[in-house]
Amino acid sequence: MRLACQLEESAGGGRVFSGIQPTGVPHLGNYLGALENWVSLQSQFPSVLYSIVDLHSITQPQDPALLRSNILDMAASLLACGIDPERAILFQQSQVSEHAELSWILGCLTTMPRLRHLPQWKMKSKQKKDGSVGLFTYPVLQAADILLYKSTHVPVGEDQVQHLELAQDLARIFNNHYGDLFPEPAALLSCTRKVKSLRDPSAKMSKSDPHTMATISITDSPDDIALKVRRAVTDFTSEVTFDPEARPGVSNLVTIHAAMARMGVEEAVAQAAGLDTGAYKRLVTEVVIQRMTPIREEIQRLRADPEHLEEVLSQGSCRARELAAPVLREVRQRVGFS
Amino acid sequence: MRLACQLEESAGGGRVFSGIQPTGVPHLGNYLGALENWVSLQSQFPSVLYSIVDLHSITQPQDPALLRSNILDMAASLLACGIDPERAILFQQSQVSEHAELSWILGCLTTMPRLRHLPQWKMKSKQKKDGSVGLFTYPVLQAADILLYKSTHVPVGEDQVQHLELAQDLARIFNNHYGDLFPEPAALLSCTRKVKSLRDPSAKMSKSDPHTMATISITDSPDDIALKVRRAVTDFTSEVTFDPEARPGVSNLVTIHAAMARMGVEEAVAQAAGLDTGAYKRLVTEVVIQRMTPIREEIQRLRADPEHLEEVLSQGSCRARELAAPVLREVRQRVGFS
Repeated sequence: MRLACQLEESAGGGRVFSGIQPTGVPHLGNYLGALENWVSLQSQFPSVLYSIVDLHSITQPQDPALLRSNILDMAASLLACGIDPERAILFQQSQVSEHAELSWILGCLTTMPRLRHLPQWKMKSKQKKDGSVGLFTYPVLQAADILLYKSTHVPVGEDQVQHLELAQDLARIFNNHYGDLFPEPAALLSCTRKVKSLRDPSAKMSKSDPHTMATISITDSPDDIALKVRRAVTDFTSEVTFDPEARPGVSNLVTIHAAMARMGVEEAVAQAAGLDTGAYKRLVTEVVIQRMTPIREEIQRLRADPEHLEEVLSQGSCRARELAAPVLREVRQRVGFS
Repeated sequence: MRLACQLEESAGGGRVFSGIQPTGVPHLGNYLGALENWVSLQSQFPSVLYSIVDLHSITQPQDPALLRSNILDMAASLLACGIDPERAILFQQSQVSEHAELSWILGCLTTMPRLRHLPQWKMKSKQKKDGSVGLFTYPVLQAADILLYKSTHVPVGEDQVQHLELAQDLARIFNNHYGDLFPEPAALLSCTRKVKSLRDPSAKMSKSDPHTMATISITDSPDDIALKVRRAVTDFTSEVTFDPEARPGVSNLVTIHAAMARMGVEEAVAQAAGLDTGAYKRLVTEVVIQRMTPIREEIQRLRADPEHLEEVLSQGSCRARELAAPVLREVRQRVGFS
């Protein structure tokens, strides 16, 4: 699989695409694992597209009213975190019909066994006993999302590497069939650390965690943040060290501290010198509150004006369509539709 | 499964949808099995849509240049057979992006086992060892084709009954989830007879038949028609009777004769009284040539003007979009996208 070192390749131009499901307001794990990186990619690449992928979200059952408000909350959150609609095209996937159209065409170039072997289907379809056709085929839609803009770089987490490989395969297969059109998109593996659950540091921080103390939302109030960090699972050693294997709980706090204060893990541990776990939790709380407060306030401001959010998404979709339409027109011609 | 008697229900209004793959110029089996019925539905229903379903055709590998010319040939053939763009909306599926979009949404309401049991997948995927995702999911796209226009009636052959059942199921499932929107489309089982191969009357007449003498294209010249009918497989009884079980070959000629001369089978057999098989073949030839000549000449005329054909399809797609757009807008709102 082609990998790109983020800073190295960016100088040469290129286009970044990434998508996020409209799960509502993101949590700290989303912010540090993906969104912070999205913000910095805006200044590293000349063209950047971020999509709220609502077509993907309906591969699992959704309440329509909640989905609608989650889409706007996600838009508000992305803007508040620093996505700048002047530098990035921020848009809602379902407003650009070319995604579904290209997905159909690419599905005709994908064999059934190729999808059956992808880990997401194996995992999610077992949970649900038998999943939907949408759940089975959504990696093809992901490939369409990327290729539709002739994207060259895609920031991915480890769990998405196999899906990006499908997009790369489909670019090759299409190019072989119909002549060169799509660049093979390269993975941007970012160096951001993974944030764990505050209640069970062996698990990822997750919005769907049933334990309300496990996950810090980026709109949590200072009191909520203080409470959740205070209750965070640690261990019986009072000194602060970074050792994710032996001491996952306190190491998770160090990870959060370092990331929030934009410093290395070593520096964070050095700052904790002489503090016991209780005192360190107060320090971490302070750092998280300091970083999150302006974001929380901005989200509140934006949420109060849904018309503005809709306008931002609508303008983004318009710009996305301007890029997508000529590519799909070319695809249609190559395939023989026109 | 809901069935509708074609003439009975038509009085109450309704909308007919049907699609045909762009396989180029149709043969006599297509004409008598479907297209003749399409023509008469135009005067029986207030709203009729006929789609050249190119998105479906790429579920099997296609040569792009051939596909393009097959689309135009199919358009020319449909017009020459009597499809009237003033009374029916004749359009190319891929020009209406709402088909692929609705298909994605319906795919999220379809379980994988539901598709695995459909006979087309079982059959075609075996032929190809492993089929494409498009081949697997195309019954969902067919359901989208139908529901997108809130169609009430769909002319189907026996082999498509299970696919229409999927469309009916998906109408119900969508309505249950999101509130009543789609009528449950009823099957129009037409009474047209099936035309068999002239070389092997146990098989359907088919464009892909390797034996060139097996299939009469609607653009065959009078000489070609005469040759193919003369060579048609019959048996050693010289008298003409209608007995498809015991005498499939001669009965196939009677079927063709009766359908082409717009008469009943009994009347055709009565006309054959006193003729031996050879003389009867000359009569059948005459009847086929008489009926097909104006169609063949009109196809030739239309083929010479591809711009006109493109214009007809483009206007049809425009009208189809006008019907599809508000339905998809409503679907998007119900799902929670807007």
